[in-house]
Amino acid sequence: MEANWRNIALLVSYDGTDFQGFQSQPQGGTIQDHLEEAIERTTGNRPRIDGSGRTDSGVHARKQIVTFKTNSNLPLRRWKVALQHHLPQSIVIVGAADVDDLFHARKSAVKKTYRYMIYHSERTPDVFQQRFQHHVPQTLNIEAMRNALPALIGTHDFATFQASGSAKVNTIRTLHHVTLTTLPDSYGRPDRVICLELCGDGFLYKMVRIIAGTLLDIGLGKKQPEHMAAIIESRNRNMARTTAPAKGLILWDVEYEEPISFS
Amino acid sequence: MEANWRNIALLVSYDGTDFQGFQSQPQGGTIQDHLEEAIERTTGNRPRIDGSGRTDSGVHARKQIVTFKTNSNLPLRRWKVALQHHLPQSIVIVGAADVDDLFHARKSAVKKTYRYMIYHSERTPDVFQQRFQHHVPQTLNIEAMRNALPALIGTHDFATFQASGSAKVNTIRTLHHVTLTTLPDSYGRPDRVICLELCGDGFLYKMVRIIAGTLLDIGLGKKQPEHMAAIIESRNRNMARTTAPAKGLILWDVEYEEPISFS
Repeated sequence: MEANWRNIALLVSYDGTDFQGFQSQPQGGTIQDHLEEAIERTTGNRPRIDGSGRTDSGVHARKQIVTFKTNSNLPLRRWKVALQHHLPQSIVIVGAADVDDLFHARKSAVKKTYRYMIYHSERTPDVFQQRFQHHVPQTLNIEAMRNALPALIGTHDFATFQASGSAKVNTIRTLHHVTLTTLPDSYGRPDRVICLELCGDGFLYKMVRIIAGTLLDIGLGKKQPEHMAAIIESRNRNMARTTAPAKGLILWDVEYEEPISFS
Repeated sequence: MEANWRNIALLVSYDGTDFQGFQSQPQGGTIQDHLEEAIERTTGNRPRIDGSGRTDSGVHARKQIVTFKTNSNLPLRRWKVALQHHLPQSIVIVGAADVDDLFHARKSAVKKTYRYMIYHSERTPDVFQQRFQHHVPQTLNIEAMRNALPALIGTHDFATFQASGSAKVNTIRTLHHVTLTTLPDSYGRPDRVICLELCGDGFLYKMVRIIAGTLLDIGLGKKQPEHMAAIIESRNRNMARTTAPAKGLILWDVEYEEPISFS
């Protein structure tokens, strides 16, 4: 690669509501398509970008990292505004950084965090948050959901929570932490918002949404928290058939060996 | 009025982004039009509803109160879901209450609170909040803005802050409190979000947005905080020509002599 090629990392946020996911598709219109087009309009060349994770249709990202090579000499501080000019409102460039040639958004990632947001116990949704919350009118049993979390933490074969359509041979992953916190809604009603946070070294296809679906079943009394360990051990997708909707899921954070300093 | 007529109050929230304001218009599509149509579809009769405030195009409401008369005997607990069924996602019925015959959403209100949300100091907006925040890339001088607030509190002739197009003769209003608080953005960067809160006995046409515009001018160094008192006393709209955009404004609360218990 010539000396004037740069490897650029972007910190990108999006409201995934109106997109068919991250990964490029022939008909266009995905997050990746929009980003590649914005880079092409800015630099004159269309790169192939790599994302830290291929979020599904309707899934959001607070910190998605993408990398691409370019020979543009646009100063770093100008990328953010230049790219933003060619992007829809619901995709925002939060920062840009020049990174090492070998740095790769997905392969270099050592830790990922997802959040799954649930709004419960009210018959109508919270209008200010509804794009980012799965609404469940019933009152969920939060203690039961919490009691199921410890079984998930640590290194396990998570084959139970892998959606069909993926053929990852190694289904062993490590979850560093899994937490459930509650927050008030926009009207100050306590505990209406449930925030599940899962941090791990990697996630299988739809793993967070299937875990969230299983926790929803537990919150609704359809499953018992003490069965979580057996559900994991079963390695049988039929033990966890509920997949929580995409809209509640946010790619919250991606971490690397060395933190990137974005500007 | 017959014995079986009821006066119903609704607590309504909306994301005003896609609506031409509250007040009914011949071409339809306003908040009022949607609500009246939902009530008609639910009860068979189209009422005329009264709102506590006629929010402008693009302005949001956390607690908008509307009242209407109906002879429907639909049980109270069922209004919320029944109406919601006929409403777009961005208008949410939070509660319904049977209220006294003489209760009127606007005339009975004794106190109103508005919030104006600003996102500043970053070149690109916060994607998760951008529908409800006015984005200013510059760094605003928060202390200067705070120093201008005390002059606003109390009973004043607020004619300076009344948009043309209104002919309210009495421009004297009382502001009970005006506060500026700062919050972190979605990435945890401190003080990026500015929340102005104004609580008073009533507001003139576009008063909050013109006050917010004047405070923005102060935050940008275009006006000095110590001039706020003179700006008010001038009773001259030319002293306060900046009207902050609609998207940052939320009708936050409306209070009545006796609190309404919504279900």
